[in-house]
Amino acid sequence: MSSFTPAPSDDIAIATIRALSADTVTKANSGHPGAPLGMAPVAHVLFSRFVNANPKNSKWFNRDRFVLSNGHGYVGSDSVSSIRTHRKFSCALQYTLLHLLGYQLTIDDLKSFRQLGSKTPGHPEAGHTDGKSTCIEVTTGPLGQGFSNGVGLAIAQAHLGAVYNKDGFDLINNYTYVFCGDGCLMEGVASEAASVAGHLQLGNLIVVYDDNRRALYRHPELWFTLYILPDISIDGDTAVAFTEDVEKRFSAYGWQVFDLPAMYNAIHAARQEKNKPTIIRLRTTIGFGSKQQGTHGVHGSPLKADDIAALKTKFGLPADQSFYVPQETQDAYNAIAARGATKEAEWNKLLASYGQKYPNEHAELVRRISGDLPAGWEKSLPVYKPSDPAVASRKLSEIVLSALSPSLPELIGGSADLTGSNLTKTKDTSDFQHPSTGLGTYAGRYIRYGVREHGMGAIANGLAAYGGLVPFVGTFMNFVSYAAGAVRLSALSGHQVIWVATHDSIGLGEDGPTHQPIETAIHLRAIPNLDFWRPADGNETSASYYAALTNRTTPSVLSLSRQNLPNLEGSTIERALKGGYVLHEEEGEQLTIVSAGSEVAIAVEAAGKLKAAGVKTRVVSLPCWSVFDKQPEDYKLSVLRSGAPILSLEALSTTGWQKYSHEQYGLDGWGASGPYLKVYAKFGITGDNIAEVGKKVVDFYKKKGGEVISPLVKAF
Amino acid sequence: MSSFTPAPSDDIAIATIRALSADTVTKANSGHPGAPLGMAPVAHVLFSRFVNANPKNSKWFNRDRFVLSNGHGYVGSDSVSSIRTHRKFSCALQYTLLHLLGYQLTIDDLKSFRQLGSKTPGHPEAGHTDGKSTCIEVTTGPLGQGFSNGVGLAIAQAHLGAVYNKDGFDLINNYTYVFCGDGCLMEGVASEAASVAGHLQLGNLIVVYDDNRRALYRHPELWFTLYILPDISIDGDTAVAFTEDVEKRFSAYGWQVFDLPAMYNAIHAARQEKNKPTIIRLRTTIGFGSKQQGTHGVHGSPLKADDIAALKTKFGLPADQSFYVPQETQDAYNAIAARGATKEAEWNKLLASYGQKYPNEHAELVRRISGDLPAGWEKSLPVYKPSDPAVASRKLSEIVLSALSPSLPELIGGSADLTGSNLTKTKDTSDFQHPSTGLGTYAGRYIRYGVREHGMGAIANGLAAYGGLVPFVGTFMNFVSYAAGAVRLSALSGHQVIWVATHDSIGLGEDGPTHQPIETAIHLRAIPNLDFWRPADGNETSASYYAALTNRTTPSVLSLSRQNLPNLEGSTIERALKGGYVLHEEEGEQLTIVSAGSEVAIAVEAAGKLKAAGVKTRVVSLPCWSVFDKQPEDYKLSVLRSGAPILSLEALSTTGWQKYSHEQYGLDGWGASGPYLKVYAKFGITGDNIAEVGKKVVDFYKKKGGEVISPLVKAF
Repeated sequence: MSSFTPAPSDDIAIATIRALSADTVTKANSGHPGAPLGMAPVAHVLFSRFVNANPKNSKWFNRDRFVLSNGHGYVGSDSVSSIRTHRKFSCALQYTLLHLLGYQLTIDDLKSFRQLGSKTPGHPEAGHTDGKSTCIEVTTGPLGQGFSNGVGLAIAQAHLGAVYNKDGFDLINNYTYVFCGDGCLMEGVASEAASVAGHLQLGNLIVVYDDNRRALYRHPELWFTLYILPDISIDGDTAVAFTEDVEKRFSAYGWQVFDLPAMYNAIHAARQEKNKPTIIRLRTTIGFGSKQQGTHGVHGSPLKADDIAALKTKFGLPADQSFYVPQETQDAYNAIAARGATKEAEWNKLLASYGQKYPNEHAELVRRISGDLPAGWEKSLPVYKPSDPAVASRKLSEIVLSALSPSLPELIGGSADLTGSNLTKTKDTSDFQHPSTGLGTYAGRYIRYGVREHGMGAIANGLAAYGGLVPFVGTFMNFVSYAAGAVRLSALSGHQVIWVATHDSIGLGEDGPTHQPIETAIHLRAIPNLDFWRPADGNETSASYYAALTNRTTPSVLSLSRQNLPNLEGSTIERALKGGYVLHEEEGEQLTIVSAGSEVAIAVEAAGKLKAAGVKTRVVSLPCWSVFDKQPEDYKLSVLRSGAPILSLEALSTTGWQKYSHEQYGLDGWGASGPYLKVYAKFGITGDNIAEVGKKVVDFYKKKGGEVISPLVKAF
Repeated sequence: MSSFTPAPSDDIAIATIRALSADTVTKANSGHPGAPLGMAPVAHVLFSRFVNANPKNSKWFNRDRFVLSNGHGYVGSDSVSSIRTHRKFSCALQYTLLHLLGYQLTIDDLKSFRQLGSKTPGHPEAGHTDGKSTCIEVTTGPLGQGFSNGVGLAIAQAHLGAVYNKDGFDLINNYTYVFCGDGCLMEGVASEAASVAGHLQLGNLIVVYDDNRRALYRHPELWFTLYILPDISIDGDTAVAFTEDVEKRFSAYGWQVFDLPAMYNAIHAARQEKNKPTIIRLRTTIGFGSKQQGTHGVHGSPLKADDIAALKTKFGLPADQSFYVPQETQDAYNAIAARGATKEAEWNKLLASYGQKYPNEHAELVRRISGDLPAGWEKSLPVYKPSDPAVASRKLSEIVLSALSPSLPELIGGSADLTGSNLTKTKDTSDFQHPSTGLGTYAGRYIRYGVREHGMGAIANGLAAYGGLVPFVGTFMNFVSYAAGAVRLSALSGHQVIWVATHDSIGLGEDGPTHQPIETAIHLRAIPNLDFWRPADGNETSASYYAALTNRTTPSVLSLSRQNLPNLEGSTIERALKGGYVLHEEEGEQLTIVSAGSEVAIAVEAAGKLKAAGVKTRVVSLPCWSVFDKQPEDYKLSVLRSGAPILSLEALSTTGWQKYSHEQYGLDGWGASGPYLKVYAKFGITGDNIAEVGKKVVDFYKKKGGEVISPLVKAF
């Protein structure tokens, strides 16, 4: 098909999408269907003519991915106008399409839009609406994330295609389609990801940009004229905050840029360009079809009943029926769904004959799609004994990655321009680069993210969402904070992303407080469904990788030292996998020191000094709070047991350690620039000082009298 | 001066800067002087010919601001090459210049570069080296921040100039100069800020972009040739991660873009353009002058002693002397400093005669420069009584801002496109916009930041750093996390920035978990020198503004509700200013409930139910942990006293509340999309359920027996 003539059935289908979206929003009684009305035609063109997906099996591996990056639903916005409001509840559009296509999302689900426990929450949540067949690829709403996830989804296809496709077996060749709005393109995370996508020449990524800027920033009385007759030059000096030339910017990133009113032709042409991502500028008419079309009203106030009726009449639908789907439209969408089912059936045949010809590749691909790791993979995990030399845990991480990488082709690494510091690149890997650069190929599995932490995190979420890949990404611990928006969504969506976060304390020394994390650990420890590991030595580092790799629906942040750490007596992979364990036992103790990461060795040193001074001291290592919290109660109480005071030690903020200890030692101010041992000494994090502090704690509890109860003993 | 012919004295000065920088880095024994060598000429041209500043008074208000955005010092980087490494220790360049110019930074300070307690830490820290006269405008190192701070500094000048300048009194007319590198331009925060700067047409902002891309990404054997003869077309397909067309991108943002080898002419021309910020692309020769010039060596390994000697010889300096400053150069820099002192003296005269003609404006400006608030300002703070109607705290915030704004012209507001939700725009303010837009003027003090949270935060840091302004910025609480990098630096640098963070819990309802903060509060509470306020009602909201406005060197985040909150019996501004206080007293209590923000009213409700059931219950409101922590010990122990168990309640993560309570109730998972009261009920945050929980706590402690000691009683 090289051109597109809309049939009458297309008009009815588009009208139906518009009416269903309007009904959905109106029923929720909380908003405005502006965007669904405007974006309905392009959504219909995209799904009816281009998207390959099987609604009966939303997990078909080679499906086209669709991301609604402007999936948000803000209430209210800037007063002159709103960059966001008009797209409010554009997720109603997505839910409507999922329903029409036959995903497991019923009319009743549409009716319970934004209600507690519904399949149709206020923003599209991956997993949430994902029953047997409903499909939301990635969670969106926080702006810029979906766009950037799309870059990750596109990289994933490019990489897996390069690895597994063979002559005559174009097995993995899907496209990634992203809808986004102005808000997404203003966010820095999307700027970062767009630059990466342009550099990587991702021809499989097609973004439709819903540009309402020229309509948005005018004083209300001018709006009508303006957006019927959009005018770039007028817009240029009227926007309140977004007057940049988006097309020129994306062209600077290396994208193909279209500004075509004919969406079919634009998407068609985008698919022909194999070496550049494409952004298509769509100029929607906000609230197209409603009585208020082109006025401020459709942004700022719900459509009234008579307006919805008028809309339906205008589009040839019965004005008095809600949630009405004409048989003709349902038939058309059934046909689209059937086409998708056929596509998958053909693909399954192709996969089977691929298996005949390439049994090894087939087996590996099938295994990766299933998410299983190869049998016995864990035998490669390094094991250490106390006599092994002291090594920085960032280096221990590199040793683990080097041991696992050859047998785990699903590992796809990268760093935000700190490869040499994060030690994230293993010798067996080459760069993921467009082959024309001469720097690598799409089969390479090391991504040069540049200095773009947030983009990296959001891209990694897309890689994980695609399937068959386990992304790990590197930066300094302190700069995981730059990516906090993506890390949070990773946890909320259950993306298995591994952060290699090195230089994790004042132990980085000379770079000083701008680079020394204080609050970062407790921030990450407080995020639900995120495992924050701070391993103390070699065995604990191996354990943290074991957990991160086997926990398929949880991101992990591995907090790693710049400085060398001794291998500890008493640490084993098995013990560490419980998240916390007794590293050094001592019956009838007067004190327990609980610690994590690089300070555990200092706790051990302090315990030795205390013992020499006659104070029996246990040491507990607690590398991962969230994993420890999931252990059986009696185990936890055996580790952090009653009977003696517990002192926590960490060269970070003490915030949060009160959960596991009676007394806390750490930093509650900023670090300092200087050689690391001097910095540690300045803040009293030495064996000598901690022994002194331990004595104070013991004396205090002796004086206080009474039984010392574990802080884990709780009323509920 | 319209053209520039370097004199022999310029050559010697540049050589001296290079040699001093190299000596400084070498003495620290931890790095490479690549960047200082390459950037020395432009730094010399800028400071000797353009910058107006008085080293003897680094706080002269109309000084030109200089920001070294690439002020970082990463150790190691990407293996093929490094986007960062070559700029390693470029802050040595800044320290060198400060020394030569006569700021309070001695040769001994240069010699203690990156040592504990020195004035010359690993990254430039604002305040740190700021003795009587040394001047670092903003803390840099974390990439992209300095660039964005520069946008804020430029807005500040444009605004204050528009407000106070009069015919014949061009009082506030300084420029802001920023040096940055590739890394800064890759960061999303800088993309956001650059788009804002272009939109605002900031003609007073001049950025010198140190572009080493073409040198960086080649295989080592090709480097030499490449960077002697840079070639855009070759570079285009060789970079590992940064191949975008930076000039085109900045042109798309609305910047003037220069690619001039003659730096004097470029800066001169940049200053002539009054309606656009300018970015000047500088192609430095890395390690210019060293034996290793143009090879990988100068990036990856320290200059050797003989190399430094050769460098000095080549530049006509004594090869055997370290930290040597020729008299000729010192004389030249003394003359530059004297010129700055003269400029300030002239300005002081101008200011005095301005005072004659415009006494009111003069008095106000002088007051603002001093940082004092006008006498009696606090009398405008709204005060509430329990009979006043329930109001959302975001609305209470708007009421405070509306009351204060007319008499506090230093307040400069804005929102990341959520004005209508954050309620940050008061009626008395107009937009800060370039007058040509017709949407506002530079005298306006409401900034439309667009959907750019991180850029907004970093720009606000620049506004605060300029002086005479108190910026406040709005977004949803959940999206403060997007700006975490800037918030952290705000706290580290002591910038008085106020975050109006609305929609602060599951209480936002339908928007669901993508927008419902869980971990955000504890993250912010753990940042040193940041006051996180979560006011429970009207008086507490007034108190939080009082604290935020009077605490001149601390940023504050005000965490505010979307939903209505009743005004509480027992709350007063004075009490709330202690950070925590007894809201509801009850002698001989069996339970204390401690809470914050929107849940305090629920705690009060639960206490009432408990009392009805015969359980005497106190209620403590703890709106600001960091302020409470600073109260005298006996006060704190009177609030969270021993004798009965303390239960915390907050509709956020319970993490951290263990510091103030024995038992914790809250969320440790994600929220849900639905009407807010249903969401609260789902998670048990209701008066009824908390009363039940309270009973369990009381029973548990009764059964346990023994004295109940306050969690604040500690061993050290």
